[in-house]
Amino acid sequence: MSKTLSEIADLLNVPVGASASKSITGVNSLADASPTEISFLSSEAHAHAFKTTSAAAVIVQKKLKLPENPNTISLPVDDADLAVAKVLELFAPPIPRPPVGVHHTAFVAPSASVADGARIGPGSFIGDNCIVGKNAVLHHNVYISSDVSIGDDCEFFPNVVIRERISIGHRVVIHAGSVLGTDGFGYRWDGLKHAKVPQIGIVIIEDDVEIGSCVCIDRAKFAATRVGRGTKIDNLVQIGHNVQVGPHCIIVGQAGLAGSATLGAGVVLGGQSAVRDHIHMGDGSMLAACSGVMEDVDPKSIVSGLPALPHRQSLREQAALRRLPNLVVEVRKLKEELEELRNQK
Amino acid sequence: MSKTLSEIADLLNVPVGASASKSITGVNSLADASPTEISFLSSEAHAHAFKTTSAAAVIVQKKLKLPENPNTISLPVDDADLAVAKVLELFAPPIPRPPVGVHHTAFVAPSASVADGARIGPGSFIGDNCIVGKNAVLHHNVYISSDVSIGDDCEFFPNVVIRERISIGHRVVIHAGSVLGTDGFGYRWDGLKHAKVPQIGIVIIEDDVEIGSCVCIDRAKFAATRVGRGTKIDNLVQIGHNVQVGPHCIIVGQAGLAGSATLGAGVVLGGQSAVRDHIHMGDGSMLAACSGVMEDVDPKSIVSGLPALPHRQSLREQAALRRLPNLVVEVRKLKEELEELRNQK
Amino acid sequence: MSKTLSEIADLLNVPVGASASKSITGVNSLADASPTEISFLSSEAHAHAFKTTSAAAVIVQKKLKLPENPNTISLPVDDADLAVAKVLELFAPPIPRPPVGVHHTAFVAPSASVADGARIGPGSFIGDNCIVGKNAVLHHNVYISSDVSIGDDCEFFPNVVIRERISIGHRVVIHAGSVLGTDGFGYRWDGLKHAKVPQIGIVIIEDDVEIGSCVCIDRAKFAATRVGRGTKIDNLVQIGHNVQVGPHCIIVGQAGLAGSATLGAGVVLGGQSAVRDHIHMGDGSMLAACSGVMEDVDPKSIVSGLPALPHRQSLREQAALRRLPNLVVEVRKLKEELEELRNQK
Repeated sequence: MSKTLSEIADLLNVPVGASASKSITGVNSLADASPTEISFLSSEAHAHAFKTTSAAAVIVQKKLKLPENPNTISLPVDDADLAVAKVLELFAPPIPRPPVGVHHTAFVAPSASVADGARIGPGSFIGDNCIVGKNAVLHHNVYISSDVSIGDDCEFFPNVVIRERISIGHRVVIHAGSVLGTDGFGYRWDGLKHAKVPQIGIVIIEDDVEIGSCVCIDRAKFAATRVGRGTKIDNLVQIGHNVQVGPHCIIVGQAGLAGSATLGAGVVLGGQSAVRDHIHMGDGSMLAACSGVMEDVDPKSIVSGLPALPHRQSLREQAALRRLPNLVVEVRKLKEELEELRNQK
Repeated sequence: MSKTLSEIADLLNVPVGASASKSITGVNSLADASPTEISFLSSEAHAHAFKTTSAAAVIVQKKLKLPENPNTISLPVDDADLAVAKVLELFAPPIPRPPVGVHHTAFVAPSASVADGARIGPGSFIGDNCIVGKNAVLHHNVYISSDVSIGDDCEFFPNVVIRERISIGHRVVIHAGSVLGTDGFGYRWDGLKHAKVPQIGIVIIEDDVEIGSCVCIDRAKFAATRVGRGTKIDNLVQIGHNVQVGPHCIIVGQAGLAGSATLGAGVVLGGQSAVRDHIHMGDGSMLAACSGVMEDVDPKSIVSGLPALPHRQSLREQAALRRLPNLVVEVRKLKEELEELRNQK
Repeated sequence: MSKTLSEIADLLNVPVGASASKSITGVNSLADASPTEISFLSSEAHAHAFKTTSAAAVIVQKKLKLPENPNTISLPVDDADLAVAKVLELFAPPIPRPPVGVHHTAFVAPSASVADGARIGPGSFIGDNCIVGKNAVLHHNVYISSDVSIGDDCEFFPNVVIRERISIGHRVVIHAGSVLGTDGFGYRWDGLKHAKVPQIGIVIIEDDVEIGSCVCIDRAKFAATRVGRGTKIDNLVQIGHNVQVGPHCIIVGQAGLAGSATLGAGVVLGGQSAVRDHIHMGDGSMLAACSGVMEDVDPKSIVSGLPALPHRQSLREQAALRRLPNLVVEVRKLKEELEELRNQK
């Protein structure tokens, strides 16, 4: 698959001169791009790599100071990252999908309804009373239990498991191996054993959510665990029972939300971060990677550390901690000096 | 599905007056309950929500001070959480299961023995010499390798993988996507490469264990990795080779136990916590969420932090750490003042 | 399965006397070994257990001081751990595998090429244009999408998912439930929503890599995510898009590498550790368990903590932190004493 440089320039709304007919075969970093690839530069930190790149052309954030490089062509844009995303889309190869219809090794319950255009892959299973929307793509061995409703244009990759009574919106993508609707983790010690607290609630995934691989989203104790529209979840994330994730959140890999935690709109959780049970993070707040939040977080605030503090305070403490070993020595000296001073009296 | 209020009151052994015939359709929080739902109040922290709830009735922890609410009925009990668990059970819809028998797309080795009442779902596999107990439920695409023994009344959800020579007790529940019996992670550098240390041991899961989704429990290097009876394990937990988990432990999501760690009886590991290899945690000890224990832990003690310390010490250090940036300033001032004092002499 | 003591002694190149014909049935710890098992002692820390072991024989690290034990035979070796690995290999039972050929419930695309000796298990799927090398073992329900190339002598356990256009070397082992080639986690806020940045790159797994269970290795944004030859990855590890893992690295369970992180040769990541995006860890460097690295790491250095610091500095800070609560008190006293001293003037 190759495109001409002018096709790319047109897409980005950038003029391109004599080299318009040059053939471009893909996208790569400045260092690794071959003379038929296009690259990009979004910050001056990598400007040195521009000097020596072999890329046919480079998408460049406007106003960056560039070194000379006569072997490549600059394509200045307002937002280099967004421009690169557009170009990547141009080169994106199609995802292999099962053909339209139900594979002969798949099972669809007679009481289930599957809309037009759906692709139900080998070994997949759709249980009683399920409703599957238009153009659904269920790859290999996807398991949909009973009473599940799935909107239009969803895509579930191999081995996705959707337990009973779950509701999924339109255009939801779930990557391989994720499990929705496992019982929430709830027990009561009854004097002899951990007695199971029944988890009779459901899971609701709103429109335009994307969920990575090996993600676990648990069923509510009662009512619903909810992931708001447009939220994106990375791999290996744990979402406990009754968690409420607002719209347009970003949850990075291996983060965990304990039971009944709630995120407002546009909250960002860094990789391996943790949100305590029943904690609320306000709209637009951020939790740094590897941090754990134990108290409610104000809207738009950034918190970090274990336990998480306002990020500035956290940085101040870290800076002070760097000085702590010396501080211990200094205090010892001060004590000695003070003692001396006293004795002199 | 609906129940009368008197059915619920009888279950909880609580008198209920004129409203006994009221129809109840489910359980919900005080804030969200509709006039046909029942709710609960187990601590005074949420008493304000009692005032405005629309719930038909509220299960209330005895001795709580309640605000007035003429629109609802109080059901006072000794243990509100336990009472709620009972009521949830009343409303729990049945789990969809494959029918009794072996699905025509499943495979059971001729040398395997499957007891009466077993339900073997589509695409499931039971290998040579396996013994599967009464009423086993193997949902969709469960894989049981060879020489595995499974007790009575077990339930394994879709895509569970049980590798060879594993022994599983009675009433064990394993949620979707979990893997038991992967080789322990053991290598020796032989000068050229990481040579694999064979992992020839097994895994033993005792009675009444429940295991969440995407949990990994590794096979022992030799002898057995063991999970004690009644222990409950949340999602995405890692249990390394030769780990010994005692009875009635609680292991919360994304926790990890490194090789040969041992937990006594009733140990609790918080979410995302970690136990170092060869470490022992005594009976009834607790490790806080996001904490990592590097040394043996005494019975009944609570430890937290990274590295984990006795919880009180940990809290004291955290409190001191909050004051550290100011302490740095104070010490600087003290130095100056002391210097001044000396110079005055 | 049993071996004679002389078979074991020959393997280790150790003389054995009159008991050469003794029958040995397995390997166990000093404490648990029965009179027909062999055990080992690699450090003096466990020498006390030697005294009371019932093991038929004990592989012993040369030069260790041993207590008396007339009931067992010592087999002194230069490297006890390596010797144990050899003996474990002797006792390793064979892994149950599907028979050579393609199971009748598996699917191999007509355009795919599968070399001699391959074992394609029940429900497995090999898509268009795939190339699968000699003696491949695809256990139950392995999914290989299109345009994947797999070298000779690979073994993939149940439910492994290999997405499109991935390249896998020779002798690669992937344990159950792992997913290679999920889209990298990349979005751009476009003012209304998180617009997906297409992830059009691939994943390259070099020769002799072993990957644990429920591991996620994401596809590159462009070019390739790469895992170098001989690297070993434990369970539940997250490897982000465009990560470059060097040869012979060790990545312990639940560790995570964010996008574009790079590891040199022989890097070790402890359990639950995290590497920030775009960070480089030099050859032979080590990141301690539960630690998170935020800055480039020099070759051969050891770092620990959150954020990770040179290990010695980290230990020094931890030691100082243990004294911090007292330090706060001391500084308060110093202030008071200084004040007093001043007032006396």
